[in-house]
Amino acid sequence: MAPAAPKSGDVIFASVDRVNAELFTLTYGAIVRQLITDLEEVEEVNKQLDQMGYNIGVRLVDEFLAKSSVSMCVDFRETADVIAKVGFKMFLGVTASVTNWDAEGTTCSLILEDNPLVDFVELPDTCQGLHYCNILSGVVRGALEMLRVALPEVFKQLRLIRAKEVEEVSMKTEVTWLRDMLRGDDVFELQVKLLKQVPEEYPYKDDE
Amino acid sequence: MAPAAPKSGDVIFASVDRVNAELFTLTYGAIVRQLITDLEEVEEVNKQLDQMGYNIGVRLVDEFLAKSSVSMCVDFRETADVIAKVGFKMFLGVTASVTNWDAEGTTCSLILEDNPLVDFVELPDTCQGLHYCNILSGVVRGALEMLRVALPEVFKQLRLIRAKEVEEVSMKTEVTWLRDMLRGDDVFELQVKLLKQVPEEYPYKDDE
Repeated sequence: MAPAAPKSGDVIFASVDRVNAELFTLTYGAIVRQLITDLEEVEEVNKQLDQMGYNIGVRLVDEFLAKSSVSMCVDFRETADVIAKVGFKMFLGVTASVTNWDAEGTTCSLILEDNPLVDFVELPDTCQGLHYCNILSGVVRGALEMLRVALPEVFKQLRLIRAKEVEEVSMKTEVTWLRDMLRGDDVFELQVKLLKQVPEEYPYKDDE
Repeated sequence: MAPAAPKSGDVIFASVDRVNAELFTLTYGAIVRQLITDLEEVEEVNKQLDQMGYNIGVRLVDEFLAKSSVSMCVDFRETADVIAKVGFKMFLGVTASVTNWDAEGTTCSLILEDNPLVDFVELPDTCQGLHYCNILSGVVRGALEMLRVALPEVFKQLRLIRAKEVEEVSMKTEVTWLRDMLRGDDVFELQVKLLKQVPEEYPYKDDE
């Protein structure tokens, strides 16, 4: 069963608290500028933005699950679809499309034609290596790591993505920009590659 | 003529592009954390946040004027009211109230009972001197400096806040937190003090 149709993203987005997109865009621009000043190396800025995004993605999953009523995803393919259609819409107000699946179903691309992060942004020549939107790749990576998919043999009995008694796996991914409108491409293309699925481990036992 | 009634803030807010407030809150939290790591001194973090906010405030004024249809404000008192009722609503989705005017009409307080920046935030003991929301004081200061009020003797002939042919003044202000919910107060109180009104100067003449 598909956990959510595209329409759900709109409905959820309309129901959550929001702030002005331009305020967000300018605030994000202020972070990037600050990091460039502090870290100097563009590669370091890319890393730091990705790390910030990862921390945010890990946190956003809670609101995502609470507000979206998305139930357990069956597999990576379905999860990518939910992130693109519901997740992006719910948080950024825009929808991504999912494409370029490989034969194994472990690599795909999220395509963004509209991206509120880059309104009014132009990169100076000194920042050509910068992945300005790297916070987004981090968010996707962090969110995927916190989302759980069911082990195939048990998924039919499951209702909730975070039910503790079930066997679940978390997804380690590598997320890479393949196309970037700030570098002259026609869209943003974020490649998401599933590296491994890790059985969920609980650090504390119940009787501890 | 009052340039905008409180209701306008809601109407404008409904019409602008928006992003999820939690994404904004977490992104802002990531900036503050980054600055604390990089700058170490809490006082420096306060300054940097204020400066970031100032740069943002200066930029936001353009969208504010374009979307709000606010016409020239008569004086500082009316400007404070517009910022509290229309500006805050339009950008953060919350409304501030204006209170504690001094006899001269040059100092007032903006009161925020709800502030999306601080959702889920608790300050650790090491950050007691931090003005976590200092970006907001910077935004208010920057926006006030870019807004223009009419010189009293000419204001009746004016229609537009940025019409170049009229005599206008810009407002230099000092913006200070008097109460802070992260420090245990019941509301956020931002004191805005008008330091001076500066006649608008145009750096380039038309025939240059």
